Amino acid sequence: MRETWVVGAVQNRFGKMKDTAREAATRVSMEAIRTSGLEPKDIGYTFVSNCFGMTEHQGHLGPLVNSGLGIPHVPSATVESACSSSSAALHEAYVHVAGGFVDAALVVGVEKLSHLDTLSATSYFAVGADYPFETKNGATFPGLYATLASAYAKQYSTRPEMFGAVAIKNHSNAARNPHAHFQKEITMDTYLSSPIIASPLRLYDCCPFSDGAAAVVVAAKEFVKSPVTEPLVFRASARAGSVTDMHDRPDLLGLPSARIAAEKAFHQAHLEPKDVDFIEVHDCFTIAEVLALEDLGFFPKGTGTRGAVEGLTARDGKIPVNPSGGLKAKGHPVGATGAAQVVEVFEQFNGLAGSRAVAKAQTALTHNVGATGGSCSVHIFTRR
Amino acid sequence: MRETWVVGAVQNRFGKMKDTAREAATRVSMEAIRTSGLEPKDIGYTFVSNCFGMTEHQGHLGPLVNSGLGIPHVPSATVESACSSSSAALHEAYVHVAGGFVDAALVVGVEKLSHLDTLSATSYFAVGADYPFETKNGATFPGLYATLASAYAKQYSTRPEMFGAVAIKNHSNAARNPHAHFQKEITMDTYLSSPIIASPLRLYDCCPFSDGAAAVVVAAKEFVKSPVTEPLVFRASARAGSVTDMHDRPDLLGLPSARIAAEKAFHQAHLEPKDVDFIEVHDCFTIAEVLALEDLGFFPKGTGTRGAVEGLTARDGKIPVNPSGGLKAKGHPVGATGAAQVVEVFEQFNGLAGSRAVAKAQTALTHNVGATGGSCSVHIFTRR
Repeated sequence: MRETWVVGAVQNRFGKMKDTAREAATRVSMEAIRTSGLEPKDIGYTFVSNCFGMTEHQGHLGPLVNSGLGIPHVPSATVESACSSSSAALHEAYVHVAGGFVDAALVVGVEKLSHLDTLSATSYFAVGADYPFETKNGATFPGLYATLASAYAKQYSTRPEMFGAVAIKNHSNAARNPHAHFQKEITMDTYLSSPIIASPLRLYDCCPFSDGAAAVVVAAKEFVKSPVTEPLVFRASARAGSVTDMHDRPDLLGLPSARIAAEKAFHQAHLEPKDVDFIEVHDCFTIAEVLALEDLGFFPKGTGTRGAVEGLTARDGKIPVNPSGGLKAKGHPVGATGAAQVVEVFEQFNGLAGSRAVAKAQTALTHNVGATGGSCSVHIFTRR
Repeated sequence: MRETWVVGAVQNRFGKMKDTAREAATRVSMEAIRTSGLEPKDIGYTFVSNCFGMTEHQGHLGPLVNSGLGIPHVPSATVESACSSSSAALHEAYVHVAGGFVDAALVVGVEKLSHLDTLSATSYFAVGADYPFETKNGATFPGLYATLASAYAKQYSTRPEMFGAVAIKNHSNAARNPHAHFQKEITMDTYLSSPIIASPLRLYDCCPFSDGAAAVVVAAKEFVKSPVTEPLVFRASARAGSVTDMHDRPDLLGLPSARIAAEKAFHQAHLEPKDVDFIEVHDCFTIAEVLALEDLGFFPKGTGTRGAVEGLTARDGKIPVNPSGGLKAKGHPVGATGAAQVVEVFEQFNGLAGSRAVAKAQTALTHNVGATGGSCSVHIFTRR
């Protein structure tokens, strides 16, 4: 395997885009390549993620992006793995580059949903679940994650304020992130007085529907030679799956795919959680961040809420979690989310994180979940 | 790179499925793994192709297929590249296995469209084109390929009977293929009296909307050791792109992506067209087969119709083309098409092609196009 780097990573501001998905994807791709010091002609393969292009009548996005970049001859493919689509695409880029099939690859994730009403958007999101067993019977992701939150709260006597602490932390981080959908702090009062969406989840337990785009340039060390940015060295790129249906799992106190992917990733990297300086996790709901901290091995089972409650996962805590604001407050444009986690690592490593900079940014982990854990990707990056 | 094989390949009968895409994909996957002599637990990664799962409210198909196979922990991703989706997925499987990332991978392509009306199905297919420039202005694939056929006919004075010969050949092959959607011969009278769909294309120039599923098991030679089937040795797995919009191309007398992918593939394989015994090409319309023969280098420019007219591409011809019946008559279930081309090679190599067997099946090439050539994959296989 060749040593493989992320040499550029750029996102737009998440929220509501005027651009079409294709336009936004092309813009962030151009910018990411420019930032990397490479040129479009250096790209050997383009991996796109875009789950809901159908709503814009547009699939087959790779050739359109490549044409916009002036490299129409370059092969491309769109990679879907529900909400973990662009981390799955990143894994493909890693495999192609590390395996020596291409010297550099582009990953671009994009989603646009703001042209739809909320009910339609919820239905589109729900295609990541199991239709005959879950969605057809009325389950959507707020309900499914509410089930996880209920099971967790029952087992560990979790009070609402303990989930609320996660939301407050992530909003505090997003308030310092110019890319974030919600750039505002919230208080415990705001949290507790927000309406119940799917009991026990309140409005502020839930990530928003966001539009957004993020691009990542992956290249072989031997190809780049003299990087113009502080590259992210891939130490692990690991993926795993689990049974989509929650009713078929042995317990609801974690996501099997996340545990397996984390185990693989730490094994690949020859690292342990204690070696990691900060992490970006898939907090589509506050319960998801709590479970992630336990699944990834950063907190013992049943203690994940301690992270936010005791300030351990704050920007200046022992292990900063979601310094970007996370899906919860930076936003969750499905196909762009996994790539945008890498943008945060890139900005932290390159001194571009402004007032949300973490104290130490030598080693970082990203965790991106598809649906309720049918898929999970874990990446670990270090500096050179 | 490790020597990489296809050790099993299975499809269902194309046409109209009662199964959902998920059920059909699971069935063919089980059967392909069983045929290969491997077990589900040997699969290290699953690549799914399914372009229109939205119409069944179902994305994120990998974990569902893997759960059906009893391997829910295995990572998966869905790969889309319009009509070349499952050959793009096959390329990912090849890269993972040849690069040593996994020992075996499953590729499964599936599509179900028969629950939609024809207008809806045409609209879904059209997402592979460029929405603002093509589809929004009324262009769908019959119209776009009709433009290619017009340009070709004008340049080379092609008479309708010359395109008709392609359709007649492919129907003749499909009549001998129990997997085919249309298992019947047609005559030149049938062809010439069929209605114009988009001038100059007649009904019998066009492939049907088909449901169908096909699965391919890819594994490293060193992992399989003693194959129970005659494996297909990957000699090349090459992909390329071109500008999606036909109005941005220097000419309409071929697909740039096909030419580039073919050049890459023959270079990788250290082979030339004369070394190939038979080919499966992407004949979504008869003009597409004609262009493919020229783009791939089997016929000089402007002479592609000679293949069918003079019997050179017949089952017993110099270079049999689409012995399966092709998209034209075997059918075109978008996400399954590229994988199904490999099923034909597998059956020809393994003496399973019955009365459509070609005289010599040592070296074969498959050519799978996305849209009007925005993407193209070319694979070359030989016997051990």
